[in-house]
Amino acid sequence: MSSETTTPSTSLVWRDMTVFDGLETLPESMAVVVSDGHIRQLTPMSRFDTSDLDQYHDMGSGGVMTPGLVDCHTHLVFGGSRADEYEARLEGVSYEEIARRGGGILSTVNATREAREDELYAAARPRLEALMADGVTCVEIKSGYGLDVDNELKMLRVARRLGADLPVRVVTTLLGAHALPPEYRDDSDGYIDLVCDEMIPRAAAEGLADAVDVFCEKIAFSVAQCERVFHAAIKHGLPIKAHAEQLSNLGGTAMAAELGALSADHIEYLDQHGINAMRKSGSVAVILPGAFLTLRETQKPPIAELRAAGVPMAVATDANPGSSPLFMPTLMLNLACTLFQLTPREALSGMTAHAASALGMKEVGRLYEGAPADLCVWDITTPAELAYAVQPGRLRQRLFKGDVNS
Amino acid sequence: MSSETTTPSTSLVWRDMTVFDGLETLPESMAVVVSDGHIRQLTPMSRFDTSDLDQYHDMGSGGVMTPGLVDCHTHLVFGGSRADEYEARLEGVSYEEIARRGGGILSTVNATREAREDELYAAARPRLEALMADGVTCVEIKSGYGLDVDNELKMLRVARRLGADLPVRVVTTLLGAHALPPEYRDDSDGYIDLVCDEMIPRAAAEGLADAVDVFCEKIAFSVAQCERVFHAAIKHGLPIKAHAEQLSNLGGTAMAAELGALSADHIEYLDQHGINAMRKSGSVAVILPGAFLTLRETQKPPIAELRAAGVPMAVATDANPGSSPLFMPTLMLNLACTLFQLTPREALSGMTAHAASALGMKEVGRLYEGAPADLCVWDITTPAELAYAVQPGRLRQRLFKGDVNS
Ligand SMILES: [Zn+2]
Ligand SMILES: [Zn+2]
Repeated sequence: MSSETTTPSTSLVWRDMTVFDGLETLPESMAVVVSDGHIRQLTPMSRFDTSDLDQYHDMGSGGVMTPGLVDCHTHLVFGGSRADEYEARLEGVSYEEIARRGGGILSTVNATREAREDELYAAARPRLEALMADGVTCVEIKSGYGLDVDNELKMLRVARRLGADLPVRVVTTLLGAHALPPEYRDDSDGYIDLVCDEMIPRAAAEGLADAVDVFCEKIAFSVAQCERVFHAAIKHGLPIKAHAEQLSNLGGTAMAAELGALSADHIEYLDQHGINAMRKSGSVAVILPGAFLTLRETQKPPIAELRAAGVPMAVATDANPGSSPLFMPTLMLNLACTLFQLTPREALSGMTAHAASALGMKEVGRLYEGAPADLCVWDITTPAELAYAVQPGRLRQRLFKGDVNS
Repeated sequence: MSSETTTPSTSLVWRDMTVFDGLETLPESMAVVVSDGHIRQLTPMSRFDTSDLDQYHDMGSGGVMTPGLVDCHTHLVFGGSRADEYEARLEGVSYEEIARRGGGILSTVNATREAREDELYAAARPRLEALMADGVTCVEIKSGYGLDVDNELKMLRVARRLGADLPVRVVTTLLGAHALPPEYRDDSDGYIDLVCDEMIPRAAAEGLADAVDVFCEKIAFSVAQCERVFHAAIKHGLPIKAHAEQLSNLGGTAMAAELGALSADHIEYLDQHGINAMRKSGSVAVILPGAFLTLRETQKPPIAELRAAGVPMAVATDANPGSSPLFMPTLMLNLACTLFQLTPREALSGMTAHAASALGMKEVGRLYEGAPADLCVWDITTPAELAYAVQPGRLRQRLFKGDVNS
């Protein structure tokens, strides 16, 4: 990638670009002009004229331009590593023995609680940089490994700091209701009280959360418990979303949609009732092929039914230490197509325009005149190649708010 | 990655390294000294002393050192792209219609035949650079999209030129018997004559092939036809290997092993008879999870049986435009573990020591005093992390013949 910098008054000009605007590939070869952090012109080459530009810098021609990628579902901030557990399981150590050794999500909770904010930041930063080097300009980061007030807020502060330090938009999500912490082993309703009465109010008051998420599943929290969390979130003005229908069909998606959820995520077991509720509410279906692959699941999300219903689909990494240690958004484009038969266009919209919708971000994920210049230029010929081939090194330029950076 | 260069007499010194030597992780923290292109010292830190080094350059400490990765099965040289076909299939275009449009392997054959040597080189080079940026220092490249004498030799010349121009060892394989070209539609034995009587003698005489490969499958060539190709190869002093038992169990692997094949590749349908033949011959089983994933196969290679028999297993990208457009070796480490339950150690040996064996390369794929300094230093804590997480950007240094390069 180039690392050129220019003064704000200079326009950046690309010619002969194939432009995928977040929803579709534009039919003509385009010229693109960026200045002062925004896209100023998005014009067919046949009508492009540089004579009205005072001063401009030639950014090259050819290749494919897309919005900067939006990874709308990640758990990038966590302590420890689960590589040893992954290895032990493959070497034949039983789940019981791994649990006895303190493995599973609670090992991440323990390591996250033990880590200082600086340590979590240092561990998460290269993961975020890996996403950025693969084209990400906007990323969601969830809490959910602290599972008490101080440690959940600590995770969210780390996420905020990453967004402040790096050229990327960070959207934070409070996922207090991710798993039951050991202190509440026999009192899951008591833990939900803590989430509703302390975590959400504190996160809202300190401006640390942009949304509230839950894990609605037999191994996590019931539909009724998740609904309580959502009511607390709504009361504090925070949008909601859900991990739902991943391992079974509990009905969490329909409940979330009826409360206006931005998105329902995973949804392998979603039924037509849930799809109808999503269509009505305008919620986005977030497809997470990394977890499906890593957990060796066999039940695929109902892609054809979602498509038929017109429910927008997003695609994300679900980057996390347990079920998706896959820090590579373009890999997810490929997996969404290969494993779930999304079309390349659907996958790309799913990591641009629809991913932005899943975050309630109206201003990013699309290319149009006036849009913030968060964009990528790829050394490929057609947008479909981004999903077809997994090949690091094809990102020629990445712009964040109009600045070319690496 | 660093791009430092040093004069040949200066030693490069790493301290406190976790070293995976190609077969196992060494039990102690190590110091490593490289000079004049070779590993001079591989010493436990507790016994390391720099006082006998005249001049040395500190290369850092901590992290994991492995042999440079060896990708022992690729089809990197090809014309055209199959992204449009991938997209069309996902958009619901039938196989018949895609065939009518000239899709499938013959579209790659046509595009490869039409391309000039320079064009094939320019197209293949970024693919090879992507593998190198992910740690590869030795790569096999097959012909097989020319399917006539001139075009097969053209592909091999491109592969040789890539090896001459870039800091990577390129091993070439003549795969004339990859598919039946349209000119021989009704005369597959006639095409095998061409392979045996012209292609192999020419490739051998011009020093263009390091080995000969076949595709033994119902949709390609019979066991008897492949055996004829192998006899021609052996007559010309070339080692042999086979694509075999990928889609059905024909017995090609056992035949190849009995003739002393370096490897049998894919082998999803391999039976115990074939495994026994491989054990006897010392052939390497090359596991190709990228094609399994992309083709959405369900029959896994018999990993447990290969392990029990002591057949060495390699892992490779099978990088090709049709069934594995996945130009990322570390992704294959992850897929080999996640999809096929290799252990991380097996996967890593499979892309270092055993991959080198699959190429008949005794001198690479392992770290020991006196070995060529083809190696990688990774920003990770344990070797298992390389298979556990897919995260571009963790390659800190890559050395080829002792030179640090990017
Ligand atoms: Zn998640
Ligand atoms: Zn192959």
